[in-house]
Amino acid sequence: MAGNTFGTLFRITTFGESHGPLIGVVIDGCYSGVPLDLDLIRTQLSRRRPGQSAITTQRMEDDEPEIVSGVINGITTGTPLTIIIRNKDQRPVDYDVLRDAYRPSHADYTYEKKYCIRDHRGSGRASARETAARVAAGAVAMQMLKVVNISVNAYVSRVGNVSIPENTSIDTTQTYNNILRCPHEATALLMQRKIEETAQTGDTLGGIISCIISGVPAGLGEPVFDKFHAQLGKAMLSINAVKGFEIGSGFFGSSQTGSQQNDVFETDKNGKVFTTTNNSGGVQGGITNGMDITFNVAFKPVSTLMKSQQSINTQKQKVIIQPGGRHDVCVVPRATPIVEAMAAITTLDFLMIANAAKLH
Amino acid sequence: MAGNTFGTLFRITTFGESHGPLIGVVIDGCYSGVPLDLDLIRTQLSRRRPGQSAITTQRMEDDEPEIVSGVINGITTGTPLTIIIRNKDQRPVDYDVLRDAYRPSHADYTYEKKYCIRDHRGSGRASARETAARVAAGAVAMQMLKVVNISVNAYVSRVGNVSIPENTSIDTTQTYNNILRCPHEATALLMQRKIEETAQTGDTLGGIISCIISGVPAGLGEPVFDKFHAQLGKAMLSINAVKGFEIGSGFFGSSQTGSQQNDVFETDKNGKVFTTTNNSGGVQGGITNGMDITFNVAFKPVSTLMKSQQSINTQKQKVIIQPGGRHDVCVVPRATPIVEAMAAITTLDFLMIANAAKLH
Amino acid sequence: MAGNTFGTLFRITTFGESHGPLIGVVIDGCYSGVPLDLDLIRTQLSRRRPGQSAITTQRMEDDEPEIVSGVINGITTGTPLTIIIRNKDQRPVDYDVLRDAYRPSHADYTYEKKYCIRDHRGSGRASARETAARVAAGAVAMQMLKVVNISVNAYVSRVGNVSIPENTSIDTTQTYNNILRCPHEATALLMQRKIEETAQTGDTLGGIISCIISGVPAGLGEPVFDKFHAQLGKAMLSINAVKGFEIGSGFFGSSQTGSQQNDVFETDKNGKVFTTTNNSGGVQGGITNGMDITFNVAFKPVSTLMKSQQSINTQKQKVIIQPGGRHDVCVVPRATPIVEAMAAITTLDFLMIANAAKLH
Amino acid sequence: MAGNTFGTLFRITTFGESHGPLIGVVIDGCYSGVPLDLDLIRTQLSRRRPGQSAITTQRMEDDEPEIVSGVINGITTGTPLTIIIRNKDQRPVDYDVLRDAYRPSHADYTYEKKYCIRDHRGSGRASARETAARVAAGAVAMQMLKVVNISVNAYVSRVGNVSIPENTSIDTTQTYNNILRCPHEATALLMQRKIEETAQTGDTLGGIISCIISGVPAGLGEPVFDKFHAQLGKAMLSINAVKGFEIGSGFFGSSQTGSQQNDVFETDKNGKVFTTTNNSGGVQGGITNGMDITFNVAFKPVSTLMKSQQSINTQKQKVIIQPGGRHDVCVVPRATPIVEAMAAITTLDFLMIANAAKLH
Repeated sequence: MAGNTFGTLFRITTFGESHGPLIGVVIDGCYSGVPLDLDLIRTQLSRRRPGQSAITTQRMEDDEPEIVSGVINGITTGTPLTIIIRNKDQRPVDYDVLRDAYRPSHADYTYEKKYCIRDHRGSGRASARETAARVAAGAVAMQMLKVVNISVNAYVSRVGNVSIPENTSIDTTQTYNNILRCPHEATALLMQRKIEETAQTGDTLGGIISCIISGVPAGLGEPVFDKFHAQLGKAMLSINAVKGFEIGSGFFGSSQTGSQQNDVFETDKNGKVFTTTNNSGGVQGGITNGMDITFNVAFKPVSTLMKSQQSINTQKQKVIIQPGGRHDVCVVPRATPIVEAMAAITTLDFLMIANAAKLH
Repeated sequence: MAGNTFGTLFRITTFGESHGPLIGVVIDGCYSGVPLDLDLIRTQLSRRRPGQSAITTQRMEDDEPEIVSGVINGITTGTPLTIIIRNKDQRPVDYDVLRDAYRPSHADYTYEKKYCIRDHRGSGRASARETAARVAAGAVAMQMLKVVNISVNAYVSRVGNVSIPENTSIDTTQTYNNILRCPHEATALLMQRKIEETAQTGDTLGGIISCIISGVPAGLGEPVFDKFHAQLGKAMLSINAVKGFEIGSGFFGSSQTGSQQNDVFETDKNGKVFTTTNNSGGVQGGITNGMDITFNVAFKPVSTLMKSQQSINTQKQKVIIQPGGRHDVCVVPRATPIVEAMAAITTLDFLMIANAAKLH
Repeated sequence: MAGNTFGTLFRITTFGESHGPLIGVVIDGCYSGVPLDLDLIRTQLSRRRPGQSAITTQRMEDDEPEIVSGVINGITTGTPLTIIIRNKDQRPVDYDVLRDAYRPSHADYTYEKKYCIRDHRGSGRASARETAARVAAGAVAMQMLKVVNISVNAYVSRVGNVSIPENTSIDTTQTYNNILRCPHEATALLMQRKIEETAQTGDTLGGIISCIISGVPAGLGEPVFDKFHAQLGKAMLSINAVKGFEIGSGFFGSSQTGSQQNDVFETDKNGKVFTTTNNSGGVQGGITNGMDITFNVAFKPVSTLMKSQQSINTQKQKVIIQPGGRHDVCVVPRATPIVEAMAAITTLDFLMIANAAKLH
Repeated sequence: MAGNTFGTLFRITTFGESHGPLIGVVIDGCYSGVPLDLDLIRTQLSRRRPGQSAITTQRMEDDEPEIVSGVINGITTGTPLTIIIRNKDQRPVDYDVLRDAYRPSHADYTYEKKYCIRDHRGSGRASARETAARVAAGAVAMQMLKVVNISVNAYVSRVGNVSIPENTSIDTTQTYNNILRCPHEATALLMQRKIEETAQTGDTLGGIISCIISGVPAGLGEPVFDKFHAQLGKAMLSINAVKGFEIGSGFFGSSQTGSQQNDVFETDKNGKVFTTTNNSGGVQGGITNGMDITFNVAFKPVSTLMKSQQSINTQKQKVIIQPGGRHDVCVVPRATPIVEAMAAITTLDFLMIANAAKLH
């Protein structure tokens, strides 16, 4: 654990800060010989990007991925694939007001306690800007997974207290039809209204992203400590603002009985084994069972408010944090590609580990 | 990720199965010169052990930890501490009935898909017996943490749909007063009744364990991927039957606004910084802020029912799984020492990593 | 790096000390479904064991491997295979004389500086007894490699200043014909005489073990830091008393010219690519090229002499270390199975990593 | 092991290729609050750079390190320090002639067997260009070590068959006085003559770099698999063209007797423990003993000759590799900063791990 690297065989190391010249990612363990689809990387980056719509910040980053290594004539070479994204939008924001203050529920105080020094310009390494590098790497992982028919689809299932109604059947092809990234159109409208109302008060919202990984073969995951959902949970909890993770029926399931929760095995007419319910979320005993992997990720509300807040500064004096700049009321819709990225990276890593264990 | 090892500097590797002669754990990274308190290890093991009370199984394991290496004259040498626990209770259970059947929501099917072979006797490595080794290692970690005044206290906050009422103040010294491991006596009684009622129906229950890590200095955790709560979440999700993890206000917090959730910094009369609320659960930006670390862990109901269930076998024929032996209706109370163990191991590892980064 | 674990996918963790009840090894990443040949483990252990012959110590350890987990009906289950070996020969040696003294070139002083406490009984974790656990794990790895026709053969090529003559062709099937583990009989006799002469003076000898890994496919090893021979070198240098490692023509090759050293590619009549020489030792750019992997490992002479030596004690007073017990004059012949073990473990790990990278 | 990352707490990940826009390194685990000396990084890079003198290639790379993250106002923030170096010298070399041929003893054949595709332009990731990133990271590590008075000094002790005479006392402050990086002036002249003579024949040379790490406290290194010199050996063997590593008296010592090799402990007048000889090279039982760490690294001769060589191509046809461009006859002098870099990185990592184990 040294912070910037994730994964064992398919392994990413992200680098850079929002206030340097660039950010990027080194991707170890790419399959060789795969045509790299830069447009998919661009698409995923654009979905994460601030300033995409009325409900997000106006800052335009225009994240263009540049391949630095690992590709020849558009084909992966198997050696590490490095992608950089230049930081173009470095407007001279007045960060001096933040030099001494500890913004509530930000990483200001904790980074200073950890390092005794802090980069107050845009949060340094704690900035959500880092997640763009994850999204680029995730888009690469998604391409590798596509070859073996595994797909990853995240969507917003709750904003504030507005949720998709229970037992609604979800069609993830509809997710990107609206800016809320909510495949249920009626709920998306309610979410948008909730965000607009909250914006009026200068306040912010959190929410939940749900995700489905389809096509995962049975048998992925390692016993004991490296269970599939343990590593997946770590992947999700490492995303900025995430405070909770659950697989399958999760917290709700823990209030039910065994007979309500147990997933009954059956065989379809082609002899394929399936379970009649999927409360397990596709993982049993830490190993995938061939059903969809389903999980939820809880994001806390944005800590930066558009109204003043009380806090203290480095001299332990009381200060008032004044709102400045323009910030998202709710970042959850922009986080769907991040969830997809971390899910794809985790799944591909487990797939490679499983392949390693086969006698060839 | 190869399954049996957890941690970076304070690192444990567990071994053994319920049907071999012994299980055990190798603990890397112990501080040297610390008197080892075997009784604490025994106490924690006894709290995990089946057969402790009317609400748990009658099997008596009598888990006696034996030190194999790393201790001289009762003092840790700093070299790896190995503890074994012999498996004494190997009654000739008739496991043959389970040889071919896939029990619902167990690891039978997934292990067989992963390994093409399966140890049907007591689930092999997927058995909860493995967690005894974690508990032993956790008790060692707790002793090391005690030296620097860090303590870990887990308790049962929900069984089935019976929860400690919201906003109840918790006194964790009361946790082990009752067999429910619930520090709120009135709730413990309701939980016990719930378990007894459920037992009548042959069904089982899950629940939630809450945990508080106190005394953790600000500054633990690594940026980006190895955030404190990301690794802690992985630790918890690696425990058998766990399906969810949340830190601080977690899922509930994601439905609130920023102004409800943000924790305001203040300074007490001694100049110590604290936050007036602790919705962050002691972690901000992935790094501890000096407040209590608070988190919840969701356990699914026990998969083994005391009533018959439909399933299939390895020949994909329909079979009925008949209840056999005697099993816990709810294992959550016995899992508190496991949660404490994994929390202590994770915290100590981060503490060591943080110490490493100080210029000496 | 926490000391007791080696490898990524095929990964071993050894545990125990010579003065505890047992030592052992946890092996992660075994292929499932492989019949386990206990006799091969026994054979390799017997080759490492002290007391095998006139030239080694008389202590009989009788190392019997016991399978603790990971095997059912003699077949590997894929879950971690744990092997223990009980320490039977715990005669009440008078270790008190060693309690305070730092034996020259032993680990006494360094362990005490590292840990501030030291297990003086048989060197604790620094004891060569630990290598028995490696040998057991190595014998498992060798069985897995055998399935894909990879074999590992180590032999003694030098004892003190007695070497196999240059350009002697080696037949490794002859290695275990003599107790020197030297496949060249005439040299073995000279080595034995050298050992006997040295024994007369109370002195000790080191030597060189050479090793050949055959049947390794081209393409194993990772770029940059995890080159095949870099990890192999680490594996060898981790063996007690090893002070040097070279692959192919190694140090000698560094005194030659490029045209002398370069290995010319040709194709045999079956179209198989080979090199006319093998100065590279089977590795080019850190990746195997399909030729035999050949390397040498330098062992320093045994530090425990049969004559008195000057040293200091923990109070920094001068002391004389008196010879005690009976020790090997030269341990190199007994180290061949250790070299084979570490070579097999390293190769199998790289093989699994390479398999992981193939699109399936 | 996924190739591009080295170290546990002080950990580097290098990225980029000689034919992309840039190369770089992410450095995890920097101490915070240390003023970064860019000039030291530049100095070390200039020592590695081709084209520095008559005996090296004429290509000028002008390696300018750019800090991308981890520094504010010239002070390290503790968060990952990223350095990039742009590739300026991308002249349109005609690499097409190399597209199909396997150059002898290069990584052409092995990379193609591993990845089924190969970047023939400048060897892709196998290019020695990658080592510039290591040198930059090493210069950062050297600065951190300087704070605790640890220094690393490498020098050329042999070129071809020209060596510094045995028992010559070495003054490493003289190393950079000549372009051979040999602190013994008379030997440096002989080496230069040897290189010039060899250049006439179109041939190349290898050699040996010796290195001394001074000021290392006793107690660094981990038991069993992560011995100080095992990891150090891996670090060295990961450098391009390295085929051997030995610590202390290494291979030579293995031909001596125990009484010749054992290092006798004594105490100086200040009560400081030392050994009267240092055949151990500062490491005993895998742990440092406070003496200088001394080791040798063997480099094979450059594989690219200035004369034609026979080989085969991807169609397995015989081809003649014609000399092209201008290449170093001997790269060993330029490799001293690489050896220093890897030694510094390894030592700092162990220092941090040792600090982690202290109770604070």
